[in-house]
Amino acid sequence: MVTLTDVVAALPETVPFVGPEAQERQRGRLFKARIGANENVFGPSPGAIRAMQDAVPSAWQYGDPESHDLREALAAHHDIDMNNLVVGEGIDGLLGYLCRLIVQPGTRVVTSAGAYPTFNYHVQASGGELIPVPYVDDHESPEDLVACAKRVGARLVYLANPDNPMGTWSSGATISSALSRLPSDCLLVLDEAYIDCAPRGAAPEIDTADTRLVRMRTFSKAYGMAGMRTGYAIGHTALIAAFNRVRNHFGMCRVSQAGALAALADQAYLAAVVTRIAAARDRITAIAAAAGLSTLPSAANFVAIDCGGDGALAQRVLSELLKRDIFVRMPFVAPQDRCIRISAGTDTLLDLFEAALPEALESAVAHNGKIQPEV
Amino acid sequence: MVTLTDVVAALPETVPFVGPEAQERQRGRLFKARIGANENVFGPSPGAIRAMQDAVPSAWQYGDPESHDLREALAAHHDIDMNNLVVGEGIDGLLGYLCRLIVQPGTRVVTSAGAYPTFNYHVQASGGELIPVPYVDDHESPEDLVACAKRVGARLVYLANPDNPMGTWSSGATISSALSRLPSDCLLVLDEAYIDCAPRGAAPEIDTADTRLVRMRTFSKAYGMAGMRTGYAIGHTALIAAFNRVRNHFGMCRVSQAGALAALADQAYLAAVVTRIAAARDRITAIAAAAGLSTLPSAANFVAIDCGGDGALAQRVLSELLKRDIFVRMPFVAPQDRCIRISAGTDTLLDLFEAALPEALESAVAHNGKIQPEV
Repeated sequence: MVTLTDVVAALPETVPFVGPEAQERQRGRLFKARIGANENVFGPSPGAIRAMQDAVPSAWQYGDPESHDLREALAAHHDIDMNNLVVGEGIDGLLGYLCRLIVQPGTRVVTSAGAYPTFNYHVQASGGELIPVPYVDDHESPEDLVACAKRVGARLVYLANPDNPMGTWSSGATISSALSRLPSDCLLVLDEAYIDCAPRGAAPEIDTADTRLVRMRTFSKAYGMAGMRTGYAIGHTALIAAFNRVRNHFGMCRVSQAGALAALADQAYLAAVVTRIAAARDRITAIAAAAGLSTLPSAANFVAIDCGGDGALAQRVLSELLKRDIFVRMPFVAPQDRCIRISAGTDTLLDLFEAALPEALESAVAHNGKIQPEV
Repeated sequence: MVTLTDVVAALPETVPFVGPEAQERQRGRLFKARIGANENVFGPSPGAIRAMQDAVPSAWQYGDPESHDLREALAAHHDIDMNNLVVGEGIDGLLGYLCRLIVQPGTRVVTSAGAYPTFNYHVQASGGELIPVPYVDDHESPEDLVACAKRVGARLVYLANPDNPMGTWSSGATISSALSRLPSDCLLVLDEAYIDCAPRGAAPEIDTADTRLVRMRTFSKAYGMAGMRTGYAIGHTALIAAFNRVRNHFGMCRVSQAGALAALADQAYLAAVVTRIAAARDRITAIAAAAGLSTLPSAANFVAIDCGGDGALAQRVLSELLKRDIFVRMPFVAPQDRCIRISAGTDTLLDLFEAALPEALESAVAHNGKIQPEV
């Protein structure tokens, strides 16, 4: 067979996340509550649904490779220039392009230990060297990330705010302050997938003149369009223009472009969904408390529940929930892996979760023997 | 600013094709006939349209990263194993992944001079060295491509069958024969985007045991779903598995997956569309003949019209057509650039083309002075 490149030959065949469908096929049974992938069960705005359905018959046409109309609307929404924006196939797609722009064998990249695995996947596929920084009190630490980047001569540093998988967040001021200490030859990629769910002040001011910052936003979370793969990056014009050297120019679905445009126009719906997400977070917190478990404060569309023991216990709680047809996920790295992560659900879905959690916890604790949940 | 990788720093910011929307924005006027991008104006099957519209409300869910159901159906359709198939974001997306798997700085890649620019774009973005082979009588030459690959020690060789932009084709037997002479450390990527429009015998037998061949198929052309970005690669299991090292696992639109599945199930509609495409090709040929121009035989969903002069004349004919709101494109490299390329259209669209061509030709010839079209 043809030889793979040196970088690719060294990589595992991998999947950053196994999809719920694959788990359902393996189990031979559907999940009753799909609240594990931080999808937005409240769905897209009715206007976006209509716009997408209306766009379907013209799916014989390629999407506009410039995503002009969507970029124009996004630029107006953020009060920036269109040339500070590139639209891509979700943040995942854009992170892949970003790594191809900046990461080559030997490039050092800093991220938090246990942060977004898909970012790590793309860094490794470009041959980069990942340098993990520990969480501090279940928060990604902008200060520590920047200090590490400076120390190791990193070119790229990743920060999700709010954080996934913990839901914790920093203030925009904290991030701006850390950014001010980032060397000029390093880029901070600020993944703001969940920012629409966060309290005011969590996002730094948008300064597109700073060549050290690129921010990623998406229609997958609060806008409820994960399946349409539409994200965008905001940054300095020079960096944004560079995406045109590697991106799949005709990669955007035409129907997604139409849907995102309509979703953006319906800010009232977005606000209503964000309110529902906040209520669902409160309910998850209450369900956990009723089962004797604590939760982390969250600015995202999910809540991390501390199972009160180690990773093995949380893993067992997770398994017991899966057995009861509740699809959830959990952090990968200790000590964050003491938690399970529950996405905001409708009342019906959270009813199912509420019914399953105490039993799942009891079984997990029984199996784990000596480890008891904190009460 | 952060330094770009060595490979990317050497690349231009580019767009393999300027979209018709960008041209419309520049002109300040819409096209009346969009018959330049080899889109399928006959559109997707009614069943596929319905399936996509029905899938829209569940667009809050990510697509299945394994595209399991679609791969299962495609495997049955082609009578191969699911593990010989990977689904991706159109052939463009898959070509990008393929280049990342195989091409690194110094890797030699063979293609025909004037063949698919997006393939070249991806090769260059991976740092590869492109070695072009001339067309022979307006055909890509499988024999010459393989001979060149052998001579220069290429790892990858590209062949589109039917060819884009000329519409010409080789028999499956010719391709198999050339493939049999390809060194074992080289891979032939056979781009069969237009194969559904081609006569029986144009596709070689599918032999997934051959590690030297990967074929690309798409729902963008005969299936009429260009805007949904759904293609697939067929090849040896080892090569197909390698895509999992670099691909965007959650990159597929959920609505596209549903649409492709329904489109595949409606083979009667596909056959009817292929018949309409063949009729449109005949009509384009007749329109050209009435204007005193010859055409190339085509097995694709478009026809190359020989404008009877050089590239400058064809370029002028193209410009004159654009002025008359007819969007068409043309080959980039001599001597194929003596042609313009017209996509199969509805009767209404081809009526517009029929009305515009003689005037466009007359103006072009008048401007070109001494060069006269062949009659």
